[in-house]
Amino acid sequence: MAMARMLLLVAMALVGSCSAWELKIQMPTKRLQAIDEAVAPLIHALRPLLGSGGELGSRGGVPCDSWVLGVEAHNVRDWKTVPAKCEGYVGHYMLGNHYRRDSKVVIDEALAYIDTLKLSGNGKEIWVFDIDETTLSNLPYYAKNGFGTRPYNATSFNAYVLEGSAPVLPETKRLYKKLLSVGVKPFFLTGRTEDQRAITVANLHSQGISGWMDLKLKQPGFKGSAVAYKSGERQKLQDAGYIIVGNIGDQWSDILGAPEGARTFKLPDPIYYIG
Amino acid sequence: MAMARMLLLVAMALVGSCSAWELKIQMPTKRLQAIDEAVAPLIHALRPLLGSGGELGSRGGVPCDSWVLGVEAHNVRDWKTVPAKCEGYVGHYMLGNHYRRDSKVVIDEALAYIDTLKLSGNGKEIWVFDIDETTLSNLPYYAKNGFGTRPYNATSFNAYVLEGSAPVLPETKRLYKKLLSVGVKPFFLTGRTEDQRAITVANLHSQGISGWMDLKLKQPGFKGSAVAYKSGERQKLQDAGYIIVGNIGDQWSDILGAPEGARTFKLPDPIYYIG
Repeated sequence: MAMARMLLLVAMALVGSCSAWELKIQMPTKRLQAIDEAVAPLIHALRPLLGSGGELGSRGGVPCDSWVLGVEAHNVRDWKTVPAKCEGYVGHYMLGNHYRRDSKVVIDEALAYIDTLKLSGNGKEIWVFDIDETTLSNLPYYAKNGFGTRPYNATSFNAYVLEGSAPVLPETKRLYKKLLSVGVKPFFLTGRTEDQRAITVANLHSQGISGWMDLKLKQPGFKGSAVAYKSGERQKLQDAGYIIVGNIGDQWSDILGAPEGARTFKLPDPIYYIG
Repeated sequence: MAMARMLLLVAMALVGSCSAWELKIQMPTKRLQAIDEAVAPLIHALRPLLGSGGELGSRGGVPCDSWVLGVEAHNVRDWKTVPAKCEGYVGHYMLGNHYRRDSKVVIDEALAYIDTLKLSGNGKEIWVFDIDETTLSNLPYYAKNGFGTRPYNATSFNAYVLEGSAPVLPETKRLYKKLLSVGVKPFFLTGRTEDQRAITVANLHSQGISGWMDLKLKQPGFKGSAVAYKSGERQKLQDAGYIIVGNIGDQWSDILGAPEGARTFKLPDPIYYIG
Protein backbone atom coordinates (compact mmCIF):
# COMPACT_ATOMS: atom_id res chain seq x y z
CA MET A 1 0.00 0.00 0.00
CA ALA A 2 2.79 2.35 0.98
CA MET A 3 4.67 1.31 -2.15
CA ALA A 4 1.63 1.82 -4.38
CA ARG A 5 1.15 5.29 -2.99
CA MET A 6 4.81 6.13 -3.51
CA LEU A 7 4.64 4.99 -7.14
CA LEU A 8 1.56 7.09 -7.67
CA LEU A 9 3.32 10.15 -6.30
CA VAL A 10 6.33 9.52 -8.54
CA ALA A 11 4.04 9.12 -11.55
CA MET A 12 2.22 12.35 -10.68
CA ALA A 13 5.53 14.17 -10.35
CA LEU A 14 6.62 12.92 -13.76
CA VAL A 15 3.42 13.93 -15.47
CA GLY A 16 3.69 17.34 -13.85
CA SER A 17 7.23 17.86 -15.13
CA CYS A 18 6.42 16.73 -18.65
CA SER A 19 3.53 19.16 -18.90
CA ALA A 20 5.70 21.99 -17.65
CA TRP A 21 8.25 21.18 -20.35
CA GLU A 22 5.75 21.11 -23.16
CA LEU A 23 4.03 24.29 -22.08
CA LYS A 24 7.38 26.04 -21.51
CA ILE A 25 6.21 27.25 -18.14
CA GLN A 26 8.99 29.15 -16.42
CA MET A 27 8.95 29.14 -12.70
CA PRO A 28 11.77 29.64 -10.25
CA THR A 29 12.08 27.08 -7.51
CA LYS A 30 12.75 27.88 -3.87
CA ARG A 31 16.41 26.87 -4.20
CA LEU A 32 16.95 28.96 -7.28
CA GLN A 33 15.48 32.05 -5.69
CA ALA A 34 18.54 32.09 -3.48
CA ILE A 35 20.74 32.70 -6.53
CA ASP A 36 21.34 36.29 -7.66
CA GLU A 37 18.41 37.93 -9.30
CA ALA A 38 20.59 38.40 -12.36
CA VAL A 39 20.28 34.74 -13.25
CA ALA A 40 16.78 34.06 -11.92
CA PRO A 41 15.02 34.93 -15.21
CA LEU A 42 16.95 32.11 -16.88
CA ILE A 43 14.99 29.36 -15.20
CA HIS A 44 13.18 27.10 -17.62
CA ALA A 45 11.26 23.93 -16.95
CA LEU A 46 13.13 20.91 -18.25
CA ARG A 47 12.37 17.28 -18.92
CA PRO A 48 12.53 15.30 -15.70
CA LEU A 49 15.85 13.75 -14.73
CA LEU A 50 14.49 10.28 -15.38
CA GLY A 51 14.47 11.02 -19.12
CA SER A 52 17.44 11.13 -21.46
CA GLY A 53 19.38 13.55 -19.29
CA GLY A 54 19.98 11.64 -16.08
CA GLU A 55 22.64 12.49 -13.52
CA LEU A 56 25.28 10.78 -15.60
CA GLY A 57 23.62 11.50 -18.89
CA SER A 58 22.93 8.96 -21.56
CA ARG A 59 22.62 5.24 -21.18
CA GLY A 60 24.88 3.69 -23.82
CA GLY A 61 27.26 5.65 -25.99
CA VAL A 62 29.40 8.42 -24.55
CA PRO A 63 28.40 9.34 -20.99
CA CYS A 64 27.45 13.01 -20.99
CA ASP A 65 29.37 14.00 -17.87
CA SER A 66 32.54 12.37 -19.23
CA TRP A 67 32.01 14.13 -22.54
CA VAL A 68 31.72 17.50 -20.77
CA LEU A 69 34.91 16.79 -18.80
CA GLY A 70 36.60 15.91 -22.09
CA VAL A 71 35.52 19.26 -23.52
CA GLU A 72 36.69 21.24 -20.48
CA ALA A 73 40.09 19.52 -20.35
CA HIS A 74 40.53 20.12 -24.10
CA ASN A 75 40.55 16.48 -25.05
CA VAL A 76 37.36 16.69 -27.09
CA ARG A 77 37.97 19.26 -29.83
CA ASP A 78 36.49 20.58 -33.03
CA TRP A 79 32.99 19.37 -32.23
CA LYS A 80 30.08 20.95 -34.07
CA THR A 81 27.16 20.19 -31.76
CA VAL A 82 26.48 18.72 -28.34
CA PRO A 83 25.54 15.02 -28.71
CA ALA A 84 21.76 14.94 -29.14
CA LYS A 85 21.25 12.64 -26.19
CA CYS A 86 23.14 15.07 -23.92
CA GLU A 87 20.63 17.89 -24.37
CA GLY A 88 18.98 17.03 -21.05
CA TYR A 89 22.26 16.67 -19.20
CA VAL A 90 23.67 19.95 -20.53
CA GLY A 91 20.37 21.72 -19.95
CA HIS A 92 20.25 20.66 -16.32
CA TYR A 93 23.93 21.50 -15.93
CA MET A 94 23.46 25.03 -17.25
CA LEU A 95 20.13 25.88 -15.63
CA GLY A 96 20.69 24.21 -12.29
CA ASN A 97 23.36 25.14 -9.80
CA HIS A 98 26.12 23.02 -11.35
CA TYR A 99 27.37 25.55 -13.93
CA ARG A 100 27.41 28.26 -11.29
CA ARG A 101 29.29 26.06 -8.80
CA ASP A 102 31.92 25.11 -11.38
CA SER A 103 32.32 28.75 -12.41
CA LYS A 104 32.73 29.82 -8.80
CA VAL A 105 35.74 27.53 -8.32
CA VAL A 106 37.40 29.17 -11.35
CA ILE A 107 36.74 32.69 -10.10
CA ASP A 108 37.83 31.84 -6.55
CA GLU A 109 41.16 30.68 -8.02
CA ALA A 110 41.46 33.90 -10.00
CA LEU A 111 40.80 36.02 -6.90
CA ALA A 112 43.34 34.04 -4.87
CA TYR A 113 45.86 34.54 -7.69
CA ILE A 114 45.24 38.31 -7.72
CA ASP A 115 45.96 38.43 -4.00
CA THR A 116 49.44 37.00 -4.65
CA LEU A 117 50.32 39.68 -7.23
CA LYS A 118 52.69 42.51 -6.43
CA LEU A 119 51.07 45.18 -8.55
CA SER A 120 53.02 48.21 -9.70
CA GLY A 121 49.89 50.34 -10.08
CA ASN A 122 51.41 52.06 -13.10
CA GLY A 123 48.28 51.56 -15.19
CA LYS A 124 49.94 49.11 -17.54
CA GLU A 125 48.60 45.99 -15.86
CA ILE A 126 45.60 44.56 -17.68
CA TRP A 127 43.32 41.54 -17.59
CA VAL A 128 41.87 40.18 -20.83
CA PHE A 129 38.20 39.17 -20.80
CA ASP A 130 36.29 37.36 -23.50
CA ILE A 131 32.61 38.40 -23.68
CA ASP A 132 30.21 35.62 -24.74
CA GLU A 133 29.83 32.92 -22.06
CA THR A 134 32.60 34.67 -20.14
CA THR A 135 31.14 38.05 -19.23
CA LEU A 136 27.68 37.92 -20.79
CA SER A 137 25.58 34.78 -20.89
CA ASN A 138 23.68 33.72 -23.98
CA LEU A 139 21.91 31.02 -22.04
CA PRO A 140 18.46 32.57 -22.63
CA TYR A 141 19.07 31.94 -26.34
CA TYR A 142 20.54 28.47 -26.02
CA ALA A 143 17.85 27.34 -23.57
CA LYS A 144 15.34 27.91 -26.35
CA ASN A 145 17.53 26.36 -29.04
CA GLY A 146 18.50 22.90 -27.80
CA PHE A 147 21.47 23.77 -25.57
CA GLY A 148 24.00 23.41 -28.36
CA THR A 149 22.53 20.25 -29.86
CA ARG A 150 21.44 22.13 -33.00
CA PRO A 151 23.87 23.51 -35.60
CA TYR A 152 24.89 27.16 -35.12
CA ASN A 153 22.33 29.50 -36.65
CA ALA A 154 24.00 32.86 -37.28
CA THR A 155 20.73 34.60 -38.15
CA SER A 156 18.83 33.77 -34.98
CA PHE A 157 21.89 34.10 -32.75
CA ASN A 158 22.78 37.54 -34.09
CA ALA A 159 19.16 38.61 -33.67
CA TYR A 160 19.49 37.62 -30.01
CA VAL A 161 22.77 39.54 -29.63
CA LEU A 162 21.13 42.64 -31.10
CA GLU A 163 18.47 42.55 -28.37
CA GLY A 164 21.28 43.53 -26.00
CA SER A 165 19.59 41.60 -23.22
CA ALA A 166 22.23 39.03 -22.28
CA PRO A 167 22.64 38.77 -18.49
CA VAL A 168 26.04 39.19 -16.88
CA LEU A 169 27.68 36.06 -15.47
CA PRO A 170 27.67 36.80 -11.76
CA GLU A 171 30.95 35.05 -10.93
CA THR A 172 32.79 36.94 -13.66
CA LYS A 173 31.30 40.19 -12.42
CA ARG A 174 32.87 39.45 -9.05
CA LEU A 175 36.29 39.11 -10.71
CA TYR A 176 35.73 42.25 -12.78
CA LYS A 177 34.94 44.38 -9.74
CA LYS A 178 37.90 42.99 -7.82
CA LEU A 179 40.25 43.93 -10.67
CA LEU A 180 38.90 47.48 -10.80
CA SER A 181 39.37 47.77 -7.04
CA VAL A 182 43.06 46.77 -7.22
CA GLY A 183 43.84 48.88 -10.29
CA VAL A 184 44.16 46.17 -12.93
CA LYS A 185 42.40 47.33 -16.08
CA PRO A 186 39.89 45.02 -17.79
CA PHE A 187 40.36 44.68 -21.55
CA PHE A 188 37.63 43.05 -23.63
CA LEU A 189 38.73 40.93 -26.57
CA THR A 190 35.81 39.34 -28.36
CA GLY A 191 34.92 37.45 -31.50
CA ARG A 192 31.87 39.73 -31.82
CA THR A 193 32.22 41.96 -34.85
CA GLU A 194 32.78 45.72 -35.05
CA ASP A 195 29.20 46.35 -36.21
CA GLN A 196 27.99 44.96 -32.87
CA ARG A 197 29.96 47.51 -30.82
CA ALA A 198 27.08 49.80 -29.81
CA ILE A 199 24.74 47.04 -28.64
CA THR A 200 27.58 45.22 -26.88
CA VAL A 201 28.58 48.35 -24.95
CA ALA A 202 24.93 49.01 -24.08
CA ASN A 203 24.43 45.42 -22.96
CA LEU A 204 27.54 45.51 -20.74
CA HIS A 205 26.53 48.84 -19.22
CA SER A 206 22.98 47.66 -18.55
CA GLN A 207 24.47 44.75 -16.59
CA GLY A 208 26.64 46.94 -14.40
CA ILE A 209 29.89 46.41 -16.30
CA SER A 210 31.82 49.59 -17.07
CA GLY A 211 35.23 51.17 -16.63
CA TRP A 212 37.13 48.93 -19.02
CA MET A 213 40.32 50.08 -20.70
CA ASP A 214 39.27 49.08 -24.19
CA LEU A 215 36.93 46.79 -26.10
CA LYS A 216 38.37 45.08 -29.17
CA LEU A 217 35.94 43.57 -31.66
CA LYS A 218 36.75 41.60 -34.79
CA GLN A 219 37.26 43.83 -37.80
CA PRO A 220 35.41 43.25 -41.09
CA GLY A 221 37.33 41.04 -43.47
CA PHE A 222 39.48 39.35 -40.82
CA LYS A 223 40.38 35.85 -41.93
CA GLY A 224 41.99 33.41 -39.58
CA SER A 225 41.37 31.29 -36.54
CA ALA A 226 40.21 32.54 -33.17
CA VAL A 227 43.60 31.62 -31.71
CA ALA A 228 45.40 33.66 -34.39
CA TYR A 229 43.08 36.65 -33.89
CA LYS A 230 43.22 36.71 -30.11
CA SER A 231 46.92 35.90 -29.64
CA GLY A 232 47.72 38.52 -32.29
CA GLU A 233 45.79 41.16 -30.36
CA ARG A 234 47.47 40.16 -27.11
CA GLN A 235 50.84 40.49 -28.84
CA LYS A 236 49.96 44.06 -29.84
CA LEU A 237 49.06 44.84 -26.23
CA GLN A 238 52.33 43.43 -25.01
CA ASP A 239 54.27 45.32 -27.68
CA ALA A 240 52.57 48.50 -26.47
CA GLY A 241 53.99 47.92 -23.00
CA TYR A 242 51.01 46.35 -21.30
CA ILE A 243 51.41 43.45 -18.90
CA ILE A 244 48.68 40.85 -19.26
CA VAL A 245 48.43 39.61 -15.70
CA GLY A 246 45.43 37.43 -16.44
CA ASN A 247 43.28 36.15 -19.29
CA ILE A 248 39.87 34.52 -18.95
CA GLY A 249 37.59 32.87 -21.47
CA ASP A 250 35.17 30.01 -21.94
CA GLN A 251 36.99 28.64 -25.02
CA TRP A 252 40.48 27.17 -25.19
CA SER A 253 40.97 29.43 -28.22
CA ASP A 254 40.63 32.40 -25.83
CA ILE A 255 43.64 31.35 -23.80
CA LEU A 256 45.95 29.38 -26.09
CA GLY A 257 48.61 30.98 -28.30
CA ALA A 258 51.53 33.11 -27.09
CA PRO A 259 51.41 35.49 -25.40
CA GLU A 260 48.72 33.80 -23.33
CA GLY A 261 48.98 36.13 -20.35
CA ALA A 262 50.73 35.42 -17.04
CA ARG A 263 47.88 33.18 -15.94
CA THR A 264 44.87 31.84 -17.80
CA PHE A 265 41.42 30.74 -16.64
CA LYS A 266 38.96 28.53 -18.49
CA LEU A 267 35.30 28.95 -17.59
CA PRO A 268 32.95 26.06 -18.35
CA ASP A 269 31.13 25.95 -21.68
CA PRO A 270 29.60 22.66 -22.76
CA ILE A 271 27.34 24.36 -25.36
CA TYR A 272 29.62 25.30 -28.24
CA TYR A 273 33.20 25.06 -29.47
CA ILE A 274 35.23 27.75 -31.24
CA GLY A 275 38.54 26.50 -32.65
CA MET B 1 5.64 -2.03 7.76
CA ALA B 2 7.12 -1.93 4.27
CA MET B 3 8.91 1.31 5.19
CA ALA B 4 10.22 -0.09 8.45
CA ARG B 5 11.59 -3.10 6.62
CA MET B 6 13.21 -0.88 4.00
CA LEU B 7 14.89 1.25 6.68
CA LEU B 8 16.16 -1.88 8.35
CA LEU B 9 17.68 -3.07 5.08
CA VAL B 10 19.32 0.33 4.52
CA ALA B 11 20.70 0.30 8.05
CA MET B 12 22.04 -3.21 7.54
CA ALA B 13 23.67 -2.19 4.29
CA LEU B 14 25.32 0.81 5.97
CA VAL B 15 26.63 -1.24 8.86
CA GLY B 16 27.95 -3.75 6.37
CA SER B 17 29.82 -1.05 4.44
CA CYS B 18 31.31 0.50 7.55
CA SER B 19 32.59 -2.83 8.76
CA ALA B 20 34.04 -3.58 5.35
CA TRP B 21 35.86 -0.25 5.39
CA GLU B 22 37.31 -0.72 8.84
CA LEU B 23 38.36 -4.28 8.21
CA LYS B 24 39.79 -3.36 4.79
CA ILE B 25 37.92 -6.24 3.21
CA GLN B 26 38.41 -6.19 -0.55
CA MET B 27 35.66 -7.66 -2.56
CA PRO B 28 34.65 -7.05 -6.14
CA THR B 29 31.01 -6.31 -6.77
CA LYS B 30 28.98 -7.77 -9.58
CA ARG B 31 29.22 -4.58 -11.63
CA LEU B 32 32.95 -4.32 -11.20
CA GLN B 33 33.51 -7.90 -12.27
CA ALA B 34 32.54 -6.75 -15.73
CA ILE B 35 35.59 -4.48 -15.87
CA ASP B 36 38.89 -5.88 -17.12
CA GLU B 37 40.57 -8.26 -14.75
CA ALA B 38 43.56 -5.93 -14.83
CA VAL B 39 41.80 -3.46 -12.59
CA ALA B 40 39.73 -5.87 -10.52
CA PRO B 41 42.38 -6.29 -7.78
CA LEU B 42 42.10 -2.55 -7.09
CA ILE B 43 38.67 -2.79 -5.54
CA HIS B 44 38.54 -1.58 -1.97
CA ALA B 45 35.55 -1.14 0.26
CA LEU B 46 34.87 2.52 0.93
CA ARG B 47 32.80 4.53 3.34
CA PRO B 48 29.19 4.59 2.19
CA LEU B 49 28.14 7.42 -0.07
CA LEU B 50 26.04 8.92 2.71
CA GLY B 51 29.24 9.97 4.48
CA SER B 52 31.55 12.82 3.59
CA GLY B 53 31.92 11.74 -0.02
CA GLY B 54 28.48 12.20 -1.51
CA GLU B 55 27.76 12.42 -5.22
CA LEU B 56 28.71 16.08 -5.26
CA GLY B 57 31.22 15.81 -2.46
CA SER B 58 31.36 18.05 0.55
CA ARG B 59 28.57 20.06 2.08
CA GLY B 60 29.93 23.57 2.59
CA GLY B 61 33.24 24.81 1.26
CA VAL B 62 34.43 23.91 -2.22
CA PRO B 63 32.24 21.26 -3.88
CA CYS B 64 34.48 18.28 -4.65
CA ASP B 65 33.24 17.67 -8.18
CA SER B 66 33.77 21.34 -9.08
CA TRP B 67 37.24 21.19 -7.55
CA VAL B 68 38.10 18.14 -9.68
CA LEU B 69 36.84 19.89 -12.81
CA GLY B 70 38.98 22.89 -11.85
CA VAL B 71 42.01 20.61 -11.62
CA GLU B 72 41.33 18.89 -14.95
CA ALA B 73 40.77 22.18 -16.83
CA HIS B 74 43.99 23.60 -15.30
CA ASN B 75 42.28 26.31 -13.32
CA VAL B 76 43.27 24.89 -9.94
CA ARG B 77 47.08 24.76 -9.89
CA ASP B 78 49.99 24.22 -7.53
CA TRP B 79 47.91 22.37 -4.97
CA LYS B 80 49.71 20.19 -2.46
CA THR B 81 46.97 17.83 -1.31
CA VAL B 82 43.39 16.95 -2.12
CA PRO B 83 41.04 18.85 0.24
CA ALA B 84 40.55 16.59 3.27
CA LYS B 85 36.79 16.53 2.89
CA CYS B 86 37.12 15.32 -0.69
CA GLU B 87 38.81 12.03 0.25
CA GLY B 88 35.51 10.19 -0.05
CA TYR B 89 34.58 11.82 -3.34
CA VAL B 90 37.98 11.20 -4.93
CA GLY B 91 38.07 7.65 -3.56
CA HIS B 92 34.71 6.80 -5.07
CA TYR B 93 35.70 8.52 -8.31
CA MET B 94 38.89 6.50 -8.64
CA LEU B 95 37.63 3.11 -7.46
CA GLY B 96 34.23 3.21 -9.05
CA ASN B 97 33.53 3.38 -12.75
CA HIS B 98 33.81 7.17 -13.06
CA TYR B 99 37.58 7.41 -13.55
CA ARG B 100 37.45 4.65 -16.13
CA ARG B 101 34.56 6.28 -18.01
CA ASP B 102 36.32 9.64 -18.11
CA SER B 103 39.56 8.00 -19.28
CA LYS B 104 37.70 6.14 -22.01
CA VAL B 105 36.45 9.39 -23.55
CA VAL B 106 40.05 10.65 -23.73
CA ILE B 107 41.33 7.46 -25.35
CA ASP B 108 38.40 7.30 -27.78
CA GLU B 109 39.35 10.82 -28.91
CA ALA B 110 42.96 9.75 -29.33
CA LEU B 111 41.98 6.72 -31.42
CA ALA B 112 39.70 8.85 -33.60
CA TYR B 113 42.57 11.29 -34.07
CA ILE B 114 44.94 8.50 -35.10
CA ASP B 115 42.47 7.39 -37.74
CA THR B 116 42.68 10.85 -39.34
CA LEU B 117 46.49 10.76 -39.63
CA LYS B 118 48.23 10.19 -42.92
CA LEU B 119 51.20 8.26 -41.64
CA SER B 120 54.41 8.06 -43.62
CA GLY B 121 55.49 4.81 -41.99
CA ASN B 122 59.13 5.93 -42.11
CA GLY B 123 59.70 5.02 -38.45
CA LYS B 124 60.11 8.63 -37.38
CA GLU B 125 56.57 9.06 -36.09
CA ILE B 126 56.36 8.73 -32.33
CA TRP B 127 53.87 9.14 -29.49
CA VAL B 128 55.05 10.35 -26.09
CA PHE B 129 53.64 8.58 -23.03
CA ASP B 130 54.05 9.55 -19.43
CA ILE B 131 54.14 6.54 -17.05
CA ASP B 132 52.60 7.18 -13.61
CA GLU B 133 48.82 7.58 -13.75
CA THR B 134 49.11 7.52 -17.54
CA THR B 135 50.39 4.03 -18.34
CA LEU B 136 50.77 2.45 -14.90
CA SER B 137 48.35 3.13 -12.04
CA ASN B 138 49.55 3.80 -8.50
CA LEU B 139 46.00 3.57 -7.23
CA PRO B 140 46.79 0.55 -5.01
CA TYR B 141 49.19 2.84 -3.13
CA TYR B 142 46.95 5.90 -2.99
CA ALA B 143 43.91 3.88 -1.95
CA LYS B 144 45.82 2.97 1.22
CA ASN B 145 47.16 6.49 1.72
CA GLY B 146 44.20 8.81 1.71
CA PHE B 147 43.71 9.33 -2.04
CA GLY B 148 46.00 12.33 -2.19
CA THR B 149 44.72 14.00 0.99
CA ARG B 150 48.02 13.34 2.78
CA PRO B 151 51.30 15.10 1.90
CA TYR B 152 53.55 13.25 -0.55
CA ASN B 153 55.71 10.69 1.20
CA ALA B 154 58.71 9.89 -1.00
CA THR B 155 59.84 6.98 1.17
CA SER B 156 56.62 4.99 1.13
CA PHE B 157 55.82 5.91 -2.48
CA ASN B 158 59.22 4.83 -3.76
CA ALA B 159 58.92 1.59 -1.79
CA TYR B 160 55.66 0.97 -3.68
CA VAL B 161 57.29 1.75 -7.03
CA LEU B 162 60.07 -0.71 -6.26
CA GLU B 163 57.52 -3.49 -5.81
CA GLY B 164 56.98 -3.22 -9.57
CA SER B 165 53.36 -4.24 -9.11
CA ALA B 166 51.51 -1.23 -10.54
CA PRO B 167 48.67 -2.32 -12.84
CA VAL B 168 48.44 -1.00 -16.37
CA LEU B 169 45.68 1.50 -17.10
CA PRO B 170 43.46 -0.46 -19.47
CA GLU B 171 42.35 2.48 -21.61
CA THR B 172 45.95 3.58 -22.20
CA LYS B 173 46.88 0.02 -23.09
CA ARG B 174 44.23 0.17 -25.80
CA LEU B 175 45.89 3.30 -27.24
CA TYR B 176 49.36 1.76 -26.93
CA LYS B 177 48.39 -1.34 -28.90
CA LYS B 178 46.67 0.72 -31.57
CA LEU B 179 49.82 2.80 -32.08
CA LEU B 180 51.98 -0.30 -32.45
CA SER B 181 49.52 -1.68 -34.99
CA VAL B 182 49.72 1.44 -37.18
CA GLY B 183 53.50 1.85 -36.88
CA VAL B 184 53.69 4.85 -34.57
CA LYS B 185 56.41 4.22 -31.99
CA PRO B 186 55.64 4.73 -28.28
CA PHE B 187 58.24 6.77 -26.40
CA PHE B 188 58.15 6.85 -22.60
CA LEU B 189 59.10 10.11 -20.93
CA THR B 190 58.78 9.92 -17.15
CA GLY B 191 59.66 11.80 -14.00
CA ARG B 192 60.79 8.47 -12.53
CA THR B 193 64.54 8.51 -11.97
CA GLU B 194 67.25 6.55 -13.77
CA ASP B 195 67.81 4.25 -10.76
CA GLN B 196 64.22 3.01 -11.19
CA ARG B 197 64.80 1.85 -14.78
CA ALA B 198 65.01 -1.89 -14.17
CA ILE B 199 61.89 -2.14 -12.01
CA THR B 200 59.96 0.17 -14.34
CA VAL B 201 60.82 -1.95 -17.38
CA ALA B 202 59.91 -5.12 -15.49
CA ASN B 203 56.62 -3.59 -14.32
CA LEU B 204 55.68 -2.49 -17.83
CA HIS B 205 56.59 -5.91 -19.28
CA SER B 206 54.61 -7.74 -16.60
CA GLN B 207 51.58 -5.69 -17.61
CA GLY B 208 51.85 -6.55 -21.29
CA ILE B 209 53.53 -3.32 -22.39
CA SER B 210 56.54 -3.77 -24.63
CA GLY B 211 57.92 -2.72 -28.01
CA TRP B 212 58.57 0.92 -27.15
CA MET B 213 61.16 2.95 -29.00
CA ASP B 214 62.84 4.31 -25.89
CA LEU B 215 62.28 5.01 -22.21
CA LYS B 216 63.64 8.28 -20.88
CA LEU B 217 63.99 8.64 -17.10
CA LYS B 218 65.13 11.69 -15.16
CA GLN B 219 68.88 11.81 -14.74
CA PRO B 220 70.52 12.26 -11.33
CA GLY B 221 71.15 15.90 -10.52
CA PHE B 222 68.55 17.32 -12.89
CA LYS B 223 67.24 20.59 -11.53
CA GLY B 224 64.25 22.28 -13.04
CA SER B 225 60.52 22.00 -13.44
CA ALA B 226 58.65 19.09 -14.96
CA VAL B 227 57.66 21.31 -17.89
CA ALA B 228 61.31 22.28 -18.53
CA TYR B 229 62.45 18.65 -18.31
CA LYS B 230 59.76 17.18 -20.53
CA SER B 231 59.61 19.92 -23.16
CA GLY B 232 63.42 19.84 -23.32
CA GLU B 233 63.38 16.11 -24.04
CA ARG B 234 60.69 16.56 -26.67
CA GLN B 235 62.81 19.25 -28.29
CA LYS B 236 65.71 16.78 -28.52
CA LEU B 237 63.43 14.25 -30.18
CA GLN B 238 62.26 16.82 -32.70
CA ASP B 239 65.83 17.95 -33.38
CA ALA B 240 66.71 14.32 -34.07
CA GLY B 241 64.07 14.24 -36.82
CA TYR B 242 61.23 12.59 -34.96
CA ILE B 243 57.66 13.74 -35.43
CA ILE B 244 55.68 13.75 -32.19
CA VAL B 245 52.22 12.95 -33.52
CA GLY B 246 50.75 12.68 -30.02
CA ASN B 247 51.56 13.23 -26.36
CA ILE B 248 49.58 11.89 -23.43
CA GLY B 249 49.87 12.45 -19.71
CA ASP B 250 47.87 12.89 -16.53
CA GLN B 251 49.55 16.19 -15.60
CA TRP B 252 49.39 19.49 -17.46
CA SER B 253 53.17 19.59 -17.04
CA ASP B 254 53.33 16.51 -19.30
CA ILE B 255 51.75 18.34 -22.20
CA LEU B 256 52.57 22.03 -21.84
CA GLY B 257 55.74 23.64 -23.18
CA ALA B 258 56.84 23.71 -26.83
CA PRO B 259 57.15 21.43 -28.65
CA GLU B 260 54.02 19.91 -27.15
CA GLY B 261 53.41 17.40 -29.93
CA ALA B 262 50.90 17.69 -32.76
CA ARG B 263 48.05 16.80 -30.40
CA THR B 264 47.94 16.42 -26.63
CA PHE B 265 45.71 14.40 -24.33
CA LYS B 266 45.11 14.95 -20.63
CA LEU B 267 44.03 11.91 -18.63
CA PRO B 268 42.22 12.52 -15.34
CA ASP B 269 44.21 12.71 -12.12
CA PRO B 270 42.53 14.25 -9.08
CA ILE B 271 45.09 12.73 -6.67
CA TYR B 272 48.25 14.79 -7.09
CA TYR B 273 49.68 17.78 -8.92
CA ILE B 274 53.14 18.11 -10.49
CA GLY B 275 53.99 21.63 -11.63
